[in-house]
Amino acid sequence: MTLVNETCSACHADAPRVGDDELTALKAQIPEWKLVEEDGTPKLQRIFSFTNFADALAFTNRVGELAESLSHHPALITEWGRVTVIWWTHKIHGLHRNDFICAARTDQLYIS
Amino acid sequence: MTLVNETCSACHADAPRVGDDELTALKAQIPEWKLVEEDGTPKLQRIFSFTNFADALAFTNRVGELAESLSHHPALITEWGRVTVIWWTHKIHGLHRNDFICAARTDQLYIS
Repeated sequence: MTLVNETCSACHADAPRVGDDELTALKAQIPEWKLVEEDGTPKLQRIFSFTNFADALAFTNRVGELAESLSHHPALITEWGRVTVIWWTHKIHGLHRNDFICAARTDQLYIS
Repeated sequence: MTLVNETCSACHADAPRVGDDELTALKAQIPEWKLVEEDGTPKLQRIFSFTNFADALAFTNRVGELAESLSHHPALITEWGRVTVIWWTHKIHGLHRNDFICAARTDQLYIS
């Protein structure tokens, strides 16, 4: 089953973080995403390119709509010509399987 | 004349940066904004608070609309419960009077 077809599960403070082996396997499904660390918290980050500000902002809104539908929210940095999307799970200060699902769904929004 | 009633002027690579004295005077009109430096470029930054994601995203769109109307674009970081707005002038790698006008107009959008 590919990530994009999975659904997000409700996430609690004691939900499992993604382990190293699982991370490698999941990361392979979203090759455009970078694993970054901010304040000791691992996060998934991808920069999406556009040819103007309006298209970047429209994408921010599409990702925002996805986030609302999943009750899971990224950081969205909107600038002229690009949107940086950062997914992580606040409650566990790290990466949950949900974040990889959201990253895959975000890729799908960019293609469509 | 207050900043909020001024209009942005077209900005070129040789447009004047705001000098130290002018900066102090302009900054006093937008007390909620912080002067930050990113990669050697001075910028104006303010974090606006909201009680959910939808309201934060709605504010991002209002600031985006302002930016489009002025042909001057900030970085907008949308997260659950907050939007960080960062204004600077790319062409001069620094702060132009326009940025202070935009900051004052952004404050006005938050109040209204």
